[in-house]
Order: sequence, then C-alpha cells, then structure tokens
Amino acid sequence: MSVLRFPRSLTRRTFSRHFSSIDLHPSQPRAPSILTSVPGPKSLALSEEIGKFQDPRAHYFVADYEKSSGNYIVDADGNILLDVFAQVASIAVGYNSPPLLEYAKSDEFIKAALNRPGLGSFPPVQWSEWINQGLMTVAPNGLDQLCTTLCGTSANETAFKLAFMAYRQRERGGDFTTEELETCMSNHSPGSPDLSILSFKGGFHGRLFASLSTTRSKALHKVDIPAFDWPAAPFPQLLYPLEDHIKENQEEEEKCLLEVERILIDQKSTKPVAAMIIEPILSEGGDHHASPSFFRSLRSLAKKHSVYFIVDEVQTGVGATGTFWAHEKWELGKGQEPDFVTFSKKMQASGVYHKLETRASKPYRNYNTWMGDPMRTLQARQILQIISSHNLVSHTSTIGALLHSTLSEIFVHFPQLILNFRGKGEGTFLSWDMPDSSIRDKFLLLVRQRGVHMGGCGEKTVRLRPMLVFGEEEVIVLADVVEGVLKMMKE
Amino acid sequence: MSVLRFPRSLTRRTFSRHFSSIDLHPSQPRAPSILTSVPGPKSLALSEEIGKFQDPRAHYFVADYEKSSGNYIVDADGNILLDVFAQVASIAVGYNSPPLLEYAKSDEFIKAALNRPGLGSFPPVQWSEWINQGLMTVAPNGLDQLCTTLCGTSANETAFKLAFMAYRQRERGGDFTTEELETCMSNHSPGSPDLSILSFKGGFHGRLFASLSTTRSKALHKVDIPAFDWPAAPFPQLLYPLEDHIKENQEEEEKCLLEVERILIDQKSTKPVAAMIIEPILSEGGDHHASPSFFRSLRSLAKKHSVYFIVDEVQTGVGATGTFWAHEKWELGKGQEPDFVTFSKKMQASGVYHKLETRASKPYRNYNTWMGDPMRTLQARQILQIISSHNLVSHTSTIGALLHSTLSEIFVHFPQLILNFRGKGEGTFLSWDMPDSSIRDKFLLLVRQRGVHMGGCGEKTVRLRPMLVFGEEEVIVLADVVEGVLKMMKE
Repeated sequence: MSVLRFPRSLTRRTFSRHFSSIDLHPSQPRAPSILTSVPGPKSLALSEEIGKFQDPRAHYFVADYEKSSGNYIVDADGNILLDVFAQVASIAVGYNSPPLLEYAKSDEFIKAALNRPGLGSFPPVQWSEWINQGLMTVAPNGLDQLCTTLCGTSANETAFKLAFMAYRQRERGGDFTTEELETCMSNHSPGSPDLSILSFKGGFHGRLFASLSTTRSKALHKVDIPAFDWPAAPFPQLLYPLEDHIKENQEEEEKCLLEVERILIDQKSTKPVAAMIIEPILSEGGDHHASPSFFRSLRSLAKKHSVYFIVDEVQTGVGATGTFWAHEKWELGKGQEPDFVTFSKKMQASGVYHKLETRASKPYRNYNTWMGDPMRTLQARQILQIISSHNLVSHTSTIGALLHSTLSEIFVHFPQLILNFRGKGEGTFLSWDMPDSSIRDKFLLLVRQRGVHMGGCGEKTVRLRPMLVFGEEEVIVLADVVEGVLKMMKE
Repeated sequence: MSVLRFPRSLTRRTFSRHFSSIDLHPSQPRAPSILTSVPGPKSLALSEEIGKFQDPRAHYFVADYEKSSGNYIVDADGNILLDVFAQVASIAVGYNSPPLLEYAKSDEFIKAALNRPGLGSFPPVQWSEWINQGLMTVAPNGLDQLCTTLCGTSANETAFKLAFMAYRQRERGGDFTTEELETCMSNHSPGSPDLSILSFKGGFHGRLFASLSTTRSKALHKVDIPAFDWPAAPFPQLLYPLEDHIKENQEEEEKCLLEVERILIDQKSTKPVAAMIIEPILSEGGDHHASPSFFRSLRSLAKKHSVYFIVDEVQTGVGATGTFWAHEKWELGKGQEPDFVTFSKKMQASGVYHKLETRASKPYRNYNTWMGDPMRTLQARQILQIISSHNLVSHTSTIGALLHSTLSEIFVHFPQLILNFRGKGEGTFLSWDMPDSSIRDKFLLLVRQRGVHMGGCGEKTVRLRPMLVFGEEEVIVLADVVEGVLKMMKE
C-alpha cells in the first residue's frame, strides 16, 4: 500500500492569512495522512462485525471519533482525512472542539443529558434562558416561535402539522365539528382533511411518510413506501455560469412559477395546498440553485393563494452558505418572511421557527413525549457562541470565495470533467457535475484515497460541505488533491 | 399556603425489606415536601416566560432537574414530589442516577455526545461493541437485527417502512420495474403502493403522519392532520377483575379476532395490509389489556395472512411490567416471534429490533443522516447494566405485586370512585378508571398537591408509571396519599 504524506505543497499557494483552523483546533492535523486503502482492513473487519446486526453496505469507512480533530477525521486504520462531507453537512465547528469538550464536563450539560424531560409538560427551570441565549439568538426575521424536535425530518413534519392545523382553523373559524372529531378517528375527511403539501422536483425533506411524500430526489428513496397523493412542481434547471445565461435562466424561472401557480389553482378542487416547502439550495437532489427573485416570487404566490411557506434549512442553515440562513439572501422584506423555517444538522438541535398565528389552537395538539432535547439545545447554544465569537459566518463567506476562485483556476483546465461549477457567493456550499455517475464516483474514491473525504449528491454531482472552521490551509490541501486527481483522470 | 410534610405515617405499613431505592440513590428524599400549590408562583412565572416562544398550556409545572433525585422530582418552587409519571414513563433508574452521572464524565460519553456521526456511513470504531454490550443484550427472542432511531415515533415508522419494503419485495421477487421507479416519483401506484398498516382502536403509536394514521387514541391527536386510509380493528374491552369475567372476556376477544380476520381479508381487494401494529397494553388510549391467548391468536392470524407483526413496546418495554418486554408474557414460542419490536422512552435510545429477512434489499433504502444516536446508545448500555446488576426487572415484578395488593386493600373502601383496577401481574404498570374525566382530573390534582405526581390516560383513567427503582418506602408514600385523597373525595 502506498503511503501518501502531506504537506507536499502547503507552500505552493499562499493567501493573506485571515483565519486559521488552528486557532480553534490547536492540535488539528495540518494535512491528511493515508496509510492504507480507504476503507482499510480494520474498517472492513469492523463493518463485517456491524453487518451481523445492521446493514453495512452504505459504510464509507469506520471512524475513530476520539482521534478526529477539527477538519480532520481519523478512520479505524489510522488514515487521517480532510473531511469536507462532515457527516452529511452536520458538523459545524469541527470534531472534538476544545471549548465544547470543556463545556461537556459541566454539571449543566451532564444533568441535561441524563435527565431527559417531557419538555411540553415538565420543562426545566432554565428552559427559556437556554433558548433565549441559544436558538432564539438566530431566529429568522419575523419568526419568534420555536418548536424543538429531534431531527430534520420531524422538524419538517412538525411544520406540516402546524400548517395543516392553522389552515383548517382559518377555514373553520370556531371549534371542531362533531363530524370532524368522529371522522378523524377513522382517518376520513373532513376530520382527516384532503389537503396537500406542494414540493419541488429534486427536493429532499426527509424519509418518514409525509416528508418522503414531499421528497423528490431519487426513486430509491421512495419506492415501495405508500405516499400521500401530493403535487410536485418543477424547479428551475439553470444554466451555469449564471452570469452567461441571464435571459434563459430568467425564462426558465418564469416558466416554473407559472406551473406552480397552475398547480395551486388546480389543487383547489382536489386536494388544496396548505403549504409549500422549499430548500434554498436543493441539496440531496443535486445542488440546484435559483435566483433570489425566483424565491421572492414563490413567496408572493404562496401569500396570494393563502398557502403557508416553509423554508427547509436543514442542510443550508447555520452559516455554510456565508449567511446564517441561506434564505437571508432573498431579502424577503417585512411581511414577506417565511411562515416556517426548519433546521437540524449543524445546529445539532432540530426544530421549526414559526409565528404565533400558527401555534396550535389547543394544548396537546402539537405534542409528544420529549418535544426536543435540552442537551442538544445546550450544544447548539455553545456552537452558536463559538460561531459568533469567531465570526465563523463571515469567515465562511470569505473562505468560500477563496475556495471558489482557487477551484475555478484549476477547473478551467478540465472542461471535460468539471461541469456546472456552482455556488459562487454561497460560502463554501459549492458543487459541480461530472460527466456521469461512474466518473463522479471514481473521482470521489480517488480523492478519498488521497486524503480528502467528499460526498456526492444527485445523479452525478460532487458537493462540498466543509465545516465552518474550514480555513486557508484546508483550501490548499483540498485544491492540491483535487488538481492531482483531475490530472490523473484526464490522462 | 398550607405546608405538608412527610413522613407522617412511614411506619404505619411495614413490609419485609427486599429493595430500597436508597441503595441506588443514597441522597434521594424519603418523602414528598410541598411548600406551595403545584404549579407554584415560580413555575407559573417561568411558564409565562416560556410562553413567549412556545405553547405552555400543557405544562404541569416547571422542574428543577439538577435537584431531582431518584424517584423524586423537584419543581421550580422547591416542592418535592414522588414522581410516578416519570416523564411519561421515560425514566428507568431515577433522576440523577449516581453511576450514570459518574459515567457521563468519561471521555467515551463526552466524545460520543459531541461528535454525532452519520451511523449508516461512518459508524464509530466501537459501534458493534457498544451495541453488543448494550441494546443487543436485551434483543427479543428471535430478533437479531437492530435499527436505531431517535424516538418512538420514528421507530414505529421505520418498522412500517421495513415492512412495506419487505412485503413488496416478497410480492415482486426480483428488482424494481421501470414503472415502479417512475411512478413512485409522483407518489402513485405501483411505485408508491396502495398498502396499509392495521392498528387497533385505542392504540397509540406516535404523532407523525404514518404513525398518527395508526394512532386511535383521541380525536384531538388526529383532527386536521391528513391521514392514510388505513383500517382499525376493535380491541377487546375486557371486564375487571379478569378472574370474575373469564367467559365474557373470552367471547369478547374471539369477537375481535373474527373482526381482525374479516378486515385482513376485505383489505386484500383494496389496500392490502402489509403489517399490523399492537401495544401489549394500549397505554395512551387508557391502559387496555388483553389475554396472552388473544395476542397469540393475533400473531397466528398475521402469519396466516402473510402480514408482518409489529409489537410496539415504546411504553411497555424495559421492565416496568415485571418482564423486560411485556410481550414475553405471551409465550409466543419458536417461529412465532414478532417480526418487529420497537422501543424508546426508558431505554433513552430508540429503535426497532427485527429479523434479517426484513433488512432492506439495497443500501440507502433504510437510511438517513444520523440513523440513531451513539450517545443515547451508551446511556442505554449503562441503564441496562444498572437494571441487570440490581435485578430491577424482578424487583419491579415483586414491588408491583406489593403495590397492587396495597392499593387493592384501600380501593375496596371506595367502590364508587375506583373502577376497573387493573394490571395485576404486570409489575408496576397499574391503572384504574374513575367515574368521569373531571373526577379523574380532580383526583390527579389533589394527589399532586399532596406530593405525588401521577398521570392520566384515556378518558378517565389514572395510570401509574413509576421508575424501576420504585421501592417499599415509595409504595407507602403513594398508598398514604392516595388513601387520604380518596377519603377526602368521598366526603
């Protein structure tokens, strides 16, 4: 097995130093170190052990989280990889963040972790303090209500529930009818109403039944699972680079908006649309972008047809696009804010921000045993403090621009391999297509073998999802490995 | 405000000492202490603060988890209550369990808590060890596969997904057809199949869309939320005490079984039933019991009609009924095991045990970002070690019998107030009805005001859900308070 050791070219590209990941992770590796194939023999043996009780076929490798640090993940065989997939975009401030490790030893954290309460009925005395010092400090404009959940899927489905309840309440005015209370017990209308959620082709909103009914990423995610007969609208298929296709892209977006409005009107006579859900960048489906103007028009259409507007920021939220929430770039303006914004992943806590008008009409309607997890809420508070005190959102905006220009310089030499490079102005939330899925998969394998762990999405897309502590040194390592692999693949 | 102080009668009833909660919680209070109304002024003020961003109307009181200990919960006003509701049956070994607190300071726990991985793709090197030392040690007979999730609802919905996928795979044999792959993208049959889950009236399986479609507890849980048109079968309405109504109850169970089979047959021409889901005791719906023979017949019916059999042990599991799993009492025998057993709550970790034959046919079909939480898995391992080393399951069986006979002695004097006392032989999983919901609610309020925190379920039921560390001293405190309140209500 060949042994690759970095840094072989750490000095080749030099940038003005504005942030180093070492500031936050003094003991982080400076470069990858690859000792075996990835997965190596120890990973494979451990996967086999796991395979006795769980499906191991989606394993990339088995990881050693005790040894991982900052931007670098260590696998079972001691390979050290620069991780720009970050547990499917779920790590904000690096593995084993020293201030988080320190905080986790506190009585506050330990007791919150071990005494999980039923938050809806027996909240802890510190609950409003924890929320106001943490999750509420980043509440999207106009949204002052918060319902915590345990994952992104349940955040989205909670938004659906709140939207359905508010929609019916608005239609009905007063209290439930006897017929509603009776029919809902047998899952029939009017108690179980024939309403729908509109989603977009290529969108991904989770894997349970209602969220999966709105997910339109891949057949393998959906096949064999019963689904609600809910509508899907086309999402603009833009041409890149955007600045070279302004007119075509504008036409494409207008075409999609017309179709959205047609669906909203058509559904009124079948299953009226109570809410539409949209990601600011359709991530799992292949990193599809649209213009702020498109999203502003969508929002207006929703308002025009009295449809709630849910923005799914599970993957885009918490800074990676260079603003805290990706939808900030739409500049929706007062009175045009989303009705719901959902989050999870990097926040570690999950939930939905909303408005008082969509609070359920009675207690116990939006309710479950745990209603979220205080321990993850505290972790979120600490993560947000680190993000804030180190300006990691504006850092990500800057480093994203640097990463984009660095990769652009390289990609110009590989026009057959790199297509539709996109995400400029979206922080480190960058991606590109490759000619087909097998070439994309080969590329991912080769860069991993050279110490950079990246993920794919959609059919043939490579997506970068670095952490917010991704710094200049990491840009250099990433760029070197990508360039080396592209050169090899071109030959 | 009157001040009640215990123990006023701790010596009145004496039992042979076989377990004291003090063994595991040396600093636990010996009795309640009530200083204010519950909720008191501090609770009310904190609820109002929380009410600015979250619905506070289901709050009982705001709790001080740092001060709570063992069986006793402390509220914001310093009231100390014996907690036999236990966060809706979610606390196994007591608040602030000393061995758990000690363990939580370990590097293993802290790093697992802070570095949440994507378990399906990047499991930690210790994963099989953690599972084999923990959750797998209590795997139900015949089930050697485990899929971890984040809550009971997602455990049930994951079981549904696995059942639907296995059912269609069995029908189809080979790979998906092109038509299936295409139609599922628009949520239509055959790709999104017209299959159903059969559940039982009075059952509760969660609050998201598919689980809520199987939940048949209360209209308020279901109204306004679109649901799948899935069938519900009647669950036996038994007469208590069981030993006095053997013949009527047997007839009632047979009637229900006939109806189940009728539904299974009828559905074949509309939405065939892929799986049925049942709780061993229908808990949220009002603690409805049935005989082991009924459950054995259900299991046989499922097998006869090639329907998967899901046992929802989210509330009944982990020892409270005096066996680790409540369904152990059915003695299903080899080859008749459930296909799926789901768990959450007291285990802190959540998930579904199943068989290799229901593993998804391809990777990424049963998949999501986190696929469970190693930190909760470790917490479960430690809880299971405490349960095992202190024999808390057999303890709960013994103490449950003691609690049952103690309450029976009291209840015999209040035949107008206490109806259908049930749960004999089911550990501490006891319950009774009261004449109507307002009397039940008044009873709960009065016992809480005297330092015992109990919960209701169904329309007019009181349910006891003590922790597994509930001991003799707690039986005495509970019995004294219940007797005192019943005397007062009778006057």
